[in-house]
Amino acid sequence: MVLQRVAIIGASGYGGLQTLRLLAGHPRFEVTFLGGERSSGKRWSDLNPFLPLPGDPVVQSPDPEAIAGVADLALLSLPNGLAAGLVPGLLERGVKVVDLSADYRYRSLAQWQEVYSSEAREVPRSDADLCREAVYGLVEWEEARIRQARLVAAPGCFPTASLLALLPFLRQGLIEPAGIVIDAKTGTSGGGRAAKEHLLLAEASEAVAPYGVVGHRHTSEIEQLASQAAGQPIQLQFTPHLMPMVRGLLATVYARLRDPGLTADDCSTLLAAAYRHSPGVAVLPVGTYPSTKWVRQTNRALLSVQVDPRTGQLIVLSAIDNMVKGQAGQGVQCLNLMAGLPAETGLPLSPFYP
Amino acid sequence: MVLQRVAIIGASGYGGLQTLRLLAGHPRFEVTFLGGERSSGKRWSDLNPFLPLPGDPVVQSPDPEAIAGVADLALLSLPNGLAAGLVPGLLERGVKVVDLSADYRYRSLAQWQEVYSSEAREVPRSDADLCREAVYGLVEWEEARIRQARLVAAPGCFPTASLLALLPFLRQGLIEPAGIVIDAKTGTSGGGRAAKEHLLLAEASEAVAPYGVVGHRHTSEIEQLASQAAGQPIQLQFTPHLMPMVRGLLATVYARLRDPGLTADDCSTLLAAAYRHSPGVAVLPVGTYPSTKWVRQTNRALLSVQVDPRTGQLIVLSAIDNMVKGQAGQGVQCLNLMAGLPAETGLPLSPFYP
Amino acid sequence: MVLQRVAIIGASGYGGLQTLRLLAGHPRFEVTFLGGERSSGKRWSDLNPFLPLPGDPVVQSPDPEAIAGVADLALLSLPNGLAAGLVPGLLERGVKVVDLSADYRYRSLAQWQEVYSSEAREVPRSDADLCREAVYGLVEWEEARIRQARLVAAPGCFPTASLLALLPFLRQGLIEPAGIVIDAKTGTSGGGRAAKEHLLLAEASEAVAPYGVVGHRHTSEIEQLASQAAGQPIQLQFTPHLMPMVRGLLATVYARLRDPGLTADDCSTLLAAAYRHSPGVAVLPVGTYPSTKWVRQTNRALLSVQVDPRTGQLIVLSAIDNMVKGQAGQGVQCLNLMAGLPAETGLPLSPFYP
Amino acid sequence: MVLQRVAIIGASGYGGLQTLRLLAGHPRFEVTFLGGERSSGKRWSDLNPFLPLPGDPVVQSPDPEAIAGVADLALLSLPNGLAAGLVPGLLERGVKVVDLSADYRYRSLAQWQEVYSSEAREVPRSDADLCREAVYGLVEWEEARIRQARLVAAPGCFPTASLLALLPFLRQGLIEPAGIVIDAKTGTSGGGRAAKEHLLLAEASEAVAPYGVVGHRHTSEIEQLASQAAGQPIQLQFTPHLMPMVRGLLATVYARLRDPGLTADDCSTLLAAAYRHSPGVAVLPVGTYPSTKWVRQTNRALLSVQVDPRTGQLIVLSAIDNMVKGQAGQGVQCLNLMAGLPAETGLPLSPFYP
Repeated sequence: MVLQRVAIIGASGYGGLQTLRLLAGHPRFEVTFLGGERSSGKRWSDLNPFLPLPGDPVVQSPDPEAIAGVADLALLSLPNGLAAGLVPGLLERGVKVVDLSADYRYRSLAQWQEVYSSEAREVPRSDADLCREAVYGLVEWEEARIRQARLVAAPGCFPTASLLALLPFLRQGLIEPAGIVIDAKTGTSGGGRAAKEHLLLAEASEAVAPYGVVGHRHTSEIEQLASQAAGQPIQLQFTPHLMPMVRGLLATVYARLRDPGLTADDCSTLLAAAYRHSPGVAVLPVGTYPSTKWVRQTNRALLSVQVDPRTGQLIVLSAIDNMVKGQAGQGVQCLNLMAGLPAETGLPLSPFYP
Repeated sequence: MVLQRVAIIGASGYGGLQTLRLLAGHPRFEVTFLGGERSSGKRWSDLNPFLPLPGDPVVQSPDPEAIAGVADLALLSLPNGLAAGLVPGLLERGVKVVDLSADYRYRSLAQWQEVYSSEAREVPRSDADLCREAVYGLVEWEEARIRQARLVAAPGCFPTASLLALLPFLRQGLIEPAGIVIDAKTGTSGGGRAAKEHLLLAEASEAVAPYGVVGHRHTSEIEQLASQAAGQPIQLQFTPHLMPMVRGLLATVYARLRDPGLTADDCSTLLAAAYRHSPGVAVLPVGTYPSTKWVRQTNRALLSVQVDPRTGQLIVLSAIDNMVKGQAGQGVQCLNLMAGLPAETGLPLSPFYP
Repeated sequence: MVLQRVAIIGASGYGGLQTLRLLAGHPRFEVTFLGGERSSGKRWSDLNPFLPLPGDPVVQSPDPEAIAGVADLALLSLPNGLAAGLVPGLLERGVKVVDLSADYRYRSLAQWQEVYSSEAREVPRSDADLCREAVYGLVEWEEARIRQARLVAAPGCFPTASLLALLPFLRQGLIEPAGIVIDAKTGTSGGGRAAKEHLLLAEASEAVAPYGVVGHRHTSEIEQLASQAAGQPIQLQFTPHLMPMVRGLLATVYARLRDPGLTADDCSTLLAAAYRHSPGVAVLPVGTYPSTKWVRQTNRALLSVQVDPRTGQLIVLSAIDNMVKGQAGQGVQCLNLMAGLPAETGLPLSPFYP
Repeated sequence: MVLQRVAIIGASGYGGLQTLRLLAGHPRFEVTFLGGERSSGKRWSDLNPFLPLPGDPVVQSPDPEAIAGVADLALLSLPNGLAAGLVPGLLERGVKVVDLSADYRYRSLAQWQEVYSSEAREVPRSDADLCREAVYGLVEWEEARIRQARLVAAPGCFPTASLLALLPFLRQGLIEPAGIVIDAKTGTSGGGRAAKEHLLLAEASEAVAPYGVVGHRHTSEIEQLASQAAGQPIQLQFTPHLMPMVRGLLATVYARLRDPGLTADDCSTLLAAAYRHSPGVAVLPVGTYPSTKWVRQTNRALLSVQVDPRTGQLIVLSAIDNMVKGQAGQGVQCLNLMAGLPAETGLPLSPFYP
């Protein structure tokens, strides 16, 4: 059995570490290149003694030529704006790319430049064609296109949880397009490994706080996909909150049902049908609600539906591990598809509980 | 200076412990009776060696006659249904009562019996008159009536945070009465000190989960007050979530503005005006959002407002300490008013940060 | 490839859940029986919706006859005293047993009855011969005997971490037999899934506390093995502490070097040599100290050594995951050996970091 | 009643914030100067909206002349090496100083320069006389000298907990001077508010790890005082560990009893006698062990003693809040004494539990 060769760029960040852990047990991929800027030239075990890698490689500067020499696929886990500097060179040399950043999540470069304006000021880009070409890597909804793609933009953690909950209802026109509220809660690992005061344990533990209220960048990413699914422009309310925990993400999604006669059982059946071919998405029985702990260390999304007959509100709960299904795991799903494998190959679906 | 004598019933639960801590520094109250069922007859320091009390008293069975002999005021921190067995006897003997349970929060006994149906089956009650007499102890909105009351029902933690955010806008008719969503997050201390599997550290840490989705008991409590303020029946969506932390409660409140031209600054000004005489409620500048950590160990509520001009949504953030402003602290505020003192007497407004 | 059939008894406790998660990815074992008393007759997904099992089995009452009909091996994860009621019946029917409880950890039944006196009062036992026959399942030191065993007593979590640190030095006579101090720290999952007040998140988080100071049961278990290795009776100081975290165990071991000229490098070399054939035990470079986070969700032990030339003290740090190497993972190692497989088969050595 | 005027230098760090919180309820002190380098010129509420201060002052650059103009006392909470630049100017102008850093904790400047060698390279110092003059602010043992002092060096958090446990036994010659082991555990707030990767919630939560094994700076600080008390040089083993919590510090102290006949009750009586005049130090009954949670947000130390008659080991448990008794609270105790007040004035002795 021939192994596909994978390069991981940004290996010491949380996205890179998580990808390496997931690939440690993967039956068909072999990591052949570890890239990093700051850690370039250092031996892996000196940087991260807790994650043993075969051969204890040295981290290298992410040069496209060097990468193309040893890898068929590359997964980029870099700060926003930096992937765009690397991707064209990789694609030219025949390396297929999964990018975990936001650089190729918008079909329009201009929209990226508007939403990520501070990054856009730092990094001049002219790859509008690649933005149009890139496939949005929401595996359950784009599997066929991902299989054919050279370049996949893995979705953000909040959009992943939110869209898995919303798309089935929007596609079928079952909810009002206006008035959707997504109240989301995430662990601090979503903020990355770079030291920031508000992510210190002393600050973030025993604390719950909203941030980016109105106008958080993921709003536009969610709206892009939601509008596409609904066939009409959607503007919704998205409010992220920082939780005192490392990993886990819960989106509590509120929307008005068009048909007030629909019950929670109806909606649950519909949701289950939408994901009947997706082993990584499970719908819980009505009345059982997901804890983020139930999906930690897994590539699984757990959904649950409730309806308030008094108000006509539909409530969809959507729990994922922000580091796995919300980032590295979904990235590996995309790699799997691009390598001709089933999407879940090598990915864990059971948590280490508790 | 004559000290008012206070009895604390349910002293070893979290509500009782928090009340005792708050009264430890109170200039005008003296705790003269510690009541408890299970711990009756035991010395305080054997039960709770971490909270030294003057004279190291013995916990007593909560007998109304004994309480009335030594106390002017009583604060009850008992499971739902039990206060109703004690209150009539205390009032008859001239002891004024603040009850932290839900027993007297509804004006109608029948509604209590419907919402708290399992408790109602255990405890036959016929004190509908006391339900009508009891004052709902939301201090910022009921100060005058509390001052005159014999019996005050301290609000629940979720209603406190939610109503502080909503009432100013409902009173002035600035938001649509339909479509209100309250997405609330609370620490595990809200579940009490009795051991339950889902509140174990091993279960509840590194976990965020919703519960009581549609139909949580606090929904009706919030709606009772919201309807009163709006002058029309309000039905809203309330979803509580359990957070991996001990104390703190955040309500994220979504409502549609009637006048889409209102800005966040307008709404913030209005909110600040509503609480200009309430030293325990502060409105943060627009763009600054409260962390529950900012109000821990305080009787303060921190509010912040944002408006999304695209969707016309008003978002109000409301953070309290569920054990203080959400329970024992608000109870002490009520005791203060009933004793003729300023509401904030002896109550902390600054957190031990971090 | 023929799969070995394994029964898990006590499936819904933390030890059982962890074993099931580990076996979910095991290439040579198949779980054919789920046993439990309280949960008997219930469908697995109703009990633990977060851990999907193939076929969604029903939990059964742990009857030896039924177990022997479908399983070659059984892993028991039961409260102390209960395994002894089940083991004889299983062995008679040819089922090999790994017991995670303390019931067979002492070579002498009388000593067990002394140390576990309260359990001994509840459960009359007469299986002194099985106590003598049982092999202590510390894999790195008893591999050959475990391979031949019918009955293996998996070590306690504290003894595992402590003995991995101590045995190499005791065997070689490098440390003084008197004056050894083991200061140990464990997560709350060690206390099990049954609800207890002191393990509530509200109680155990933001808290560090010692317990069982002088005379904790694991002291005698450690001393039994330490004495055997030293060839003389060892009496040592063992103090466990409860940490505000779910999983992870660190033993900080202090001992006086006999030869004051030995350096940290000398001791580190010796330790590495002792475990050179043990892929699950790694010795960190001198000056790098293990975090329990580095071994979470792994069956790995991380050791590190330091020497204070001023005082002649040797300090050995030993970190494990109390639920994996300290319990279920070591149990699976034993199952592997009893089934003729390499000890690490199917066991993870890399953490999901962070 | 005339209020003493206090300047707080380093107000936005954790030491400064904690001091301000403690002084918020102080009956005899008034904060008249807030000093800070980075935050100089900024309004307090913009920096720390969670801690309201009367008059919402502006933070100022810490100029000795300006400080002396408005303050009688100054409390410095600055990184090591920086206080020494400010103290001479303050003392010359008649301002009494409590310094929370290590700058004046050693009687010998040369020793400070050796232990804090990196700081010494940055900051040339020639104030050996002030090092000799400064009083070590361990209140329970130096009260008389602190009352007369111009300059007090508040002890480190680890030395405070360790010395409170050790000094009574060393003074009376009850324990062997050799072989003492201090295994200490602290929350992450001890690392300060500046962002560092290893103190991120994502890194430090669900993790226990040792650091500074052999040679941590606090070793020499503890030894200086221990030697003084014993009347002979003491060299001991001190190992700090980082805990997954914000605040709290536990020292588990092991020492050999000289008289093997001494019981835990004997030792507990002795300890209680040593602190009979210290309201902030309490000795728990034998068999009750302190949790750090029991002293959070208090200036209390909780001690407990156990003896292992088999090994002759004495074990002393010592729990404090590292931010209060281990830092700011002890600083305020010193300010109290220097202002002629009882040491505990204005300081909390009860925790906000849980």
